[in-house]
Amino acid sequence: MVDVIDLQAKREKITEYWSPRIVGQLNDYLLKMAKIEGDFVWHSHPETDELFFVVAGHLRIDFRDHSIDLAPGQLCVVPASMEHEPFADTECTILMIEPVGTLNTGDAGGARTVSEPEWI
Amino acid sequence: MVDVIDLQAKREKITEYWSPRIVGQLNDYLLKMAKIEGDFVWHSHPETDELFFVVAGHLRIDFRDHSIDLAPGQLCVVPASMEHEPFADTECTILMIEPVGTLNTGDAGGARTVSEPEWI
Repeated sequence: MVDVIDLQAKREKITEYWSPRIVGQLNDYLLKMAKIEGDFVWHSHPETDELFFVVAGHLRIDFRDHSIDLAPGQLCVVPASMEHEPFADTECTILMIEPVGTLNTGDAGGARTVSEPEWI
Repeated sequence: MVDVIDLQAKREKITEYWSPRIVGQLNDYLLKMAKIEGDFVWHSHPETDELFFVVAGHLRIDFRDHSIDLAPGQLCVVPASMEHEPFADTECTILMIEPVGTLNTGDAGGARTVSEPEWI
């Protein structure tokens, strides 16, 4: 049976901020959801683009020379190697799509790295 | 500048049924949107999984041994090689994510194949 993945239902299962959970897989890409609030760390992913889709709330992504704002139903693809910092003024739920093994903190590493996200 | 891709705004640009349009790219994967109504052709993609996300309306996907129904905000990943036929009773808008070069009709080919979808 092919699973139906309901983003709002998955969203309700997430209780921690900045801790991605895996909700699906497309070949060697993972679909990860996270609830976020406040700021993160500046980082980039030298090896891969990264897709951000807003499920609920509002997401700002700061780049070194500009920022973008995303509302529910909007997405963006951050190019490989481009430094970025996600930010949410109030709680926001995002879906990310990126290759297996991509770390949330990219090349920055550090305490906020989630090396092995759980499936929900 | 990183583009904000608004799925509802893209949806309004699509006037033909069953004619995918490209709205974004993630590494060597394309994000394609299509408006659909009625049935399509049974087919599979031997080389790749295929992601379907419903933007508006309702999508049914028939498999040889079961069917699934997807509402807005729901998605599924059809495994490589699994035969499937998308269907929509009334107009439905879907986002698909699949590798560059993946044809809408997969291994079935035929008159409904769109070999070179346009960017919108």
